[in-house]
Amino acid sequence: MQFTAAQIALMIQGIVEGDASIAISSFGKIEEAVNGQLSFMANPKYEEYLYTTQASIIIINDSLELKTGINKTIIRVKDAYSAFATLMTKYQELAAKQLKGIQEPSYISASAQLGNNIYFGAFAYAGEQVTIGNDSKIYPGVFIGDRVKIGSNTIIHAGVKIYNDCVIGDHVIIHAGVVIGSDGFGFAPQADGTYKKVPQLGNVIVENEVEIGANTTIDRATMGSTVIKKGVKLDNLVQIAHNVEVDENTVIAAQTGISGSSKVGKNVQIGGQTGISGHISIADGSKINGKSGVTKTIKESNKSFNGNPAYDFSTSKRIEAHTRNLPALEKRVKELEKLVEQLNAERLIPKLGQKTSL
Amino acid sequence: MQFTAAQIALMIQGIVEGDASIAISSFGKIEEAVNGQLSFMANPKYEEYLYTTQASIIIINDSLELKTGINKTIIRVKDAYSAFATLMTKYQELAAKQLKGIQEPSYISASAQLGNNIYFGAFAYAGEQVTIGNDSKIYPGVFIGDRVKIGSNTIIHAGVKIYNDCVIGDHVIIHAGVVIGSDGFGFAPQADGTYKKVPQLGNVIVENEVEIGANTTIDRATMGSTVIKKGVKLDNLVQIAHNVEVDENTVIAAQTGISGSSKVGKNVQIGGQTGISGHISIADGSKINGKSGVTKTIKESNKSFNGNPAYDFSTSKRIEAHTRNLPALEKRVKELEKLVEQLNAERLIPKLGQKTSL
Amino acid sequence: MQFTAAQIALMIQGIVEGDASIAISSFGKIEEAVNGQLSFMANPKYEEYLYTTQASIIIINDSLELKTGINKTIIRVKDAYSAFATLMTKYQELAAKQLKGIQEPSYISASAQLGNNIYFGAFAYAGEQVTIGNDSKIYPGVFIGDRVKIGSNTIIHAGVKIYNDCVIGDHVIIHAGVVIGSDGFGFAPQADGTYKKVPQLGNVIVENEVEIGANTTIDRATMGSTVIKKGVKLDNLVQIAHNVEVDENTVIAAQTGISGSSKVGKNVQIGGQTGISGHISIADGSKINGKSGVTKTIKESNKSFNGNPAYDFSTSKRIEAHTRNLPALEKRVKELEKLVEQLNAERLIPKLGQKTSL
Repeated sequence: MQFTAAQIALMIQGIVEGDASIAISSFGKIEEAVNGQLSFMANPKYEEYLYTTQASIIIINDSLELKTGINKTIIRVKDAYSAFATLMTKYQELAAKQLKGIQEPSYISASAQLGNNIYFGAFAYAGEQVTIGNDSKIYPGVFIGDRVKIGSNTIIHAGVKIYNDCVIGDHVIIHAGVVIGSDGFGFAPQADGTYKKVPQLGNVIVENEVEIGANTTIDRATMGSTVIKKGVKLDNLVQIAHNVEVDENTVIAAQTGISGSSKVGKNVQIGGQTGISGHISIADGSKINGKSGVTKTIKESNKSFNGNPAYDFSTSKRIEAHTRNLPALEKRVKELEKLVEQLNAERLIPKLGQKTSL
Repeated sequence: MQFTAAQIALMIQGIVEGDASIAISSFGKIEEAVNGQLSFMANPKYEEYLYTTQASIIIINDSLELKTGINKTIIRVKDAYSAFATLMTKYQELAAKQLKGIQEPSYISASAQLGNNIYFGAFAYAGEQVTIGNDSKIYPGVFIGDRVKIGSNTIIHAGVKIYNDCVIGDHVIIHAGVVIGSDGFGFAPQADGTYKKVPQLGNVIVENEVEIGANTTIDRATMGSTVIKKGVKLDNLVQIAHNVEVDENTVIAAQTGISGSSKVGKNVQIGGQTGISGHISIADGSKINGKSGVTKTIKESNKSFNGNPAYDFSTSKRIEAHTRNLPALEKRVKELEKLVEQLNAERLIPKLGQKTSL
Repeated sequence: MQFTAAQIALMIQGIVEGDASIAISSFGKIEEAVNGQLSFMANPKYEEYLYTTQASIIIINDSLELKTGINKTIIRVKDAYSAFATLMTKYQELAAKQLKGIQEPSYISASAQLGNNIYFGAFAYAGEQVTIGNDSKIYPGVFIGDRVKIGSNTIIHAGVKIYNDCVIGDHVIIHAGVVIGSDGFGFAPQADGTYKKVPQLGNVIVENEVEIGANTTIDRATMGSTVIKKGVKLDNLVQIAHNVEVDENTVIAAQTGISGSSKVGKNVQIGGQTGISGHISIADGSKINGKSGVTKTIKESNKSFNGNPAYDFSTSKRIEAHTRNLPALEKRVKELEKLVEQLNAERLIPKLGQKTSL
């Protein structure tokens, strides 16, 4: 897709200075952009690049006074950064809209119901009684098990696997390699040391506007549903165990794991590589630092936590600092021992302290 | 699949109260079940739901005296929970048995040998000289490399990738996205700072009754075999490096990693996000807490470990508690310093202690 | 593939003792090898196996004096281990060379350009304007998005997903299930608690001679490129966030995560399950121990680090040792308190110290 400076100015209500017919087909940072790219300059720290950039078109703030002439095309708007973000979003929407139709070979069971205007890539598979809403995009190699329901305007990237009976909402984005609905890790120990599988007959429900990162795994419930609520954002390689519930607008960074039956509240932020124990709750608005290990329920909302085991943020940081100073503390204790031993040696009632191991 | 109360009662040797012709097609927890579902009530804590549930059929203990009439169908058995679990297992077996035949398009090399009664999904691939035992189910998009052997009654879920020459036993379940037989991480450092790949020519052997969670990775041995022994259960996103051996009936929770050439004993339990160093052994029956880092061989059997570096459980918990109290300890040392300084200042032989930094 | 002792001796400039016409088709460790396998014995510790091994051919050092006759075929070379390694590498190269041609069904867009002598497996997908260099191997089920460029002599294993516009170099190996170019985890918080997706319009560049382990994920840049430079080796299940740069010949072990916009220097070694915070730099030649959490920029080159938060290696180990001894330190402080209390009780000016909490 190509756009001229004139077309772009129209989209963002800007004013062109220079050649309005010049066209770009991609985006670049001002310090890296090449010929044929659109860039922007909003932060004065980057102004020097304005005069050296190879970008063909640069969006700048209305208020900016140029120090010298520029032989590139400029578009002036009120807020350059926000105009640029708007353009990037529009570009992605346009690119996505071009993706349409059913590529062959693909496998669509006779009982599957596909909405209007969808993309269904080569080697994608839709099992019995699958339903897919309008305007959704199913990339190549996606597996959709029997009776799965997928909403409208949802994008399922290449090689995602969704087991039978799971439910995916509208405006959801699921990145490549994600697995949804695999069996929960449930085994009953037997007397002979072996384990017997506990059947996992529930499903996974992913609500509207959720985004799920590459190769993340979400297990189905034993009974009932593992639920990822509206607006949740999961990063790559996250593990969500059976019967977990993640409430609205919570964001979870990469490689975090949440154990079985735990409930994470609304608007929680969890850093990468964190572990959450099973059967606990995390209150709304909690902030959990990366690499933490949360082993107990967090009842109070809007608090920050850190460490393994996790404590409230300030306690944890105090413990961290004291741990850092442990070698010094040990030295101070050794000095005290020496002094006290001397004091003790000189005292008037010598039998005291003799039972100690000093 | 639909079953009537009469059919279900027959399967679990129960007695029907109410309409024996009513039918269900899925399972639900008593507090969440909807019309058309089977539920159970074994724990008295949940008795209130017995009178309000929307489930069509409820299994209860023989001994339970109802407080009031119920307009649902009841099945009485000796042990309601165990009867329900039996039914769930039977249901899964029946559902799996319905899966049969070879879907097209799929790729089966001329030299591959497929057993009787197998399912081979669309877009699944079986390389040269692959063998698959009777009653196994290969879901869509599975890749099976040359000379791989798969036993009977084994289920390989969608999008699993098994490299050439690996061996998978009977009654194995491998969840979606698992990779078996990728190259071990072996590189020889060169004088110029680059690394030269050490060829990884061994394989992976997965014995009978193993279950492997979604997106887990198991590397092939450099020479010989990486071995996952009978009855082992691996959760999602676990990493097993080259030449590792995991012995019988060991269970390993999600996101744990085991480094090259380490040996994990029988009936070991490893919590999530644990790391095991390379070239060490873990004794039979060890229990390792989540997020631990085990850096040394564990020789004694049946002990518990925790922490990073991991210590025996009680030592680790004692260290954890003392670490938590470090700020208080520091305060006590400060008080002591103050007191000792005063004592020192008053003493009779003043030169003592002058070399200290108090 | 089969090779006779005579053929092997020719390849490694060795001298055959015994039947030069005997043939092998695979490799084995001397203590495990079976009939039809080639083995080697370089380490005297293993000499006993030389007389009991089932291997058909054994490579040994020129200098070795046999204690007794062996009824196997022997090949003598100057350095048995290095000759064996050479053979393993040659074997893999030969095996790879046999893989050729385009398997059907596969999907190659009309505008894709494929080099000479490539392998393109069944169910693999090449989007619009994809280019693939000579001698590259694309295994079954690989997804290659629009405008992706892949170099020559590169191996992409089964089920890898590469999003549009990414660039992969020459002599690269990407293992099964890897995802390259998924959206970075970028969301702008909104006033109502929801998050708005920040479009991720950059790409990923993987330079020559990189190897990437199974199910690893590498996100595309927001703008510009996420870059994995020449000779980098990534293990399994590694997470590389958007706009990260990993410089030449750096090796990163399994399950490590690197957060957005961080820069890892040349010849860095990072242990498994390590976390690197966002927007920091790691100096060339750094060594970071497994399970570390690096939260600050490392400026000085060639230093070792450990712990979470990570300190230089010796500080970290000193802190670890002191932490281990915390219960003993607490005991010492308690003894001191007792002694000082007694000393204080006996002193001449009793009001001192009364304000303390002893």
